[in-house]
Amino acid sequence: MKTVSGEIRLRTKPDFDMLDITGQVSMFVAESGIKSGTVTVFVVGSTAAVSTVEFEPGMMKDIPASLEKIAPSGADYEHHKTWGCDNGKSHVRATLIGPGITVPVIGGKLPLGAWQQIVLMELDTKPRDRTVVLQVSGE
Amino acid sequence: MKTVSGEIRLRTKPDFDMLDITGQVSMFVAESGIKSGTVTVFVVGSTAAVSTVEFEPGMMKDIPASLEKIAPSGADYEHHKTWGCDNGKSHVRATLIGPGITVPVIGGKLPLGAWQQIVLMELDTKPRDRTVVLQVSGE
Amino acid sequence: MKTVSGEIRLRTKPDFDMLDITGQVSMFVAESGIKSGTVTVFVVGSTAAVSTVEFEPGMMKDIPASLEKIAPSGADYEHHKTWGCDNGKSHVRATLIGPGITVPVIGGKLPLGAWQQIVLMELDTKPRDRTVVLQVSGE
Repeated sequence: MKTVSGEIRLRTKPDFDMLDITGQVSMFVAESGIKSGTVTVFVVGSTAAVSTVEFEPGMMKDIPASLEKIAPSGADYEHHKTWGCDNGKSHVRATLIGPGITVPVIGGKLPLGAWQQIVLMELDTKPRDRTVVLQVSGE
Repeated sequence: MKTVSGEIRLRTKPDFDMLDITGQVSMFVAESGIKSGTVTVFVVGSTAAVSTVEFEPGMMKDIPASLEKIAPSGADYEHHKTWGCDNGKSHVRATLIGPGITVPVIGGKLPLGAWQQIVLMELDTKPRDRTVVLQVSGE
Repeated sequence: MKTVSGEIRLRTKPDFDMLDITGQVSMFVAESGIKSGTVTVFVVGSTAAVSTVEFEPGMMKDIPASLEKIAPSGADYEHHKTWGCDNGKSHVRATLIGPGITVPVIGGKLPLGAWQQIVLMELDTKPRDRTVVLQVSGE
């Protein structure tokens, strides 16, 4: 067994962005030569998240609509008093969704559904340069 | 170290179902012969999720009650306009909970709490045939 | 490749507590001697959760404020009827956030952001003695 490390670098749009990184993760796994194991997909930073989704235009609006119910844009966040910033909602949303996922690797491929893509979710109020760390382990 | 792959196949009920798969995951880990490592439990598809819960009848109602607050059944989802379907809430809920978890394997067993079970959550509006992928890695 | 197992034991405060365990996880990874792999951080029990956050005093209030929207303290939980207890909200919140995360290990270190800490979230209504299991795998 071995471990192969990589990174994806992305530029995001502010106030909800969602980028399909399935192709990049799949290609990295294929190039690693690992046929059986797992790949961990983990975003550096506390105002972004990683999950899977059916990646289609409707979800680009439906997901932020639900996030508004959980951590509304107009609420009075204590985080703003600490730092004089405006992204309290971003931190709360990122923590509740989580920074990463681990996906099985079987026969060198990811067993995703036909309408299931791996995405980076940008939750910050500013555009960001993001680094997603990829860690493939297996044999 | 080695990796052993498996699958659990399940038939679910629509509009929230929760199936305790702890026994199946534990048995698979035991049969793998791996004593120290991890098991990744990952559901194929974008309208289901995996987590842990105290599996008891009350939670079968309490969890969907909270999911109604996050992504209500009666809301006007953009996803429905894309596909003419009715499961926009299902996709949003699945993405926010997440498709999988990774659990340590210690002495060939899972260090779960006495009232902590691994569950597949069905979030779709139709009954589904689900595949949960199990990936055990370790020595 | 090898796997090294450990535990963190913590005493928590009731009705939302959040403890920064980044230092303990990082030290455990360093002492394991593993330079390239992953560490799984998993809490035993069904009323606590693990994630990453910018750990600062404001978040100690902002996160529970959002959790009140998802699973309010005053709601009428079926879980209470099952057991005669008062922590239905705790279980729902823990299941939706999730019991653990897996973080890459690169060069013997965790690739966290400067303002991204690993935390145990106590969601129960009583103070608890918690065990967080650490599983480092790699080479």
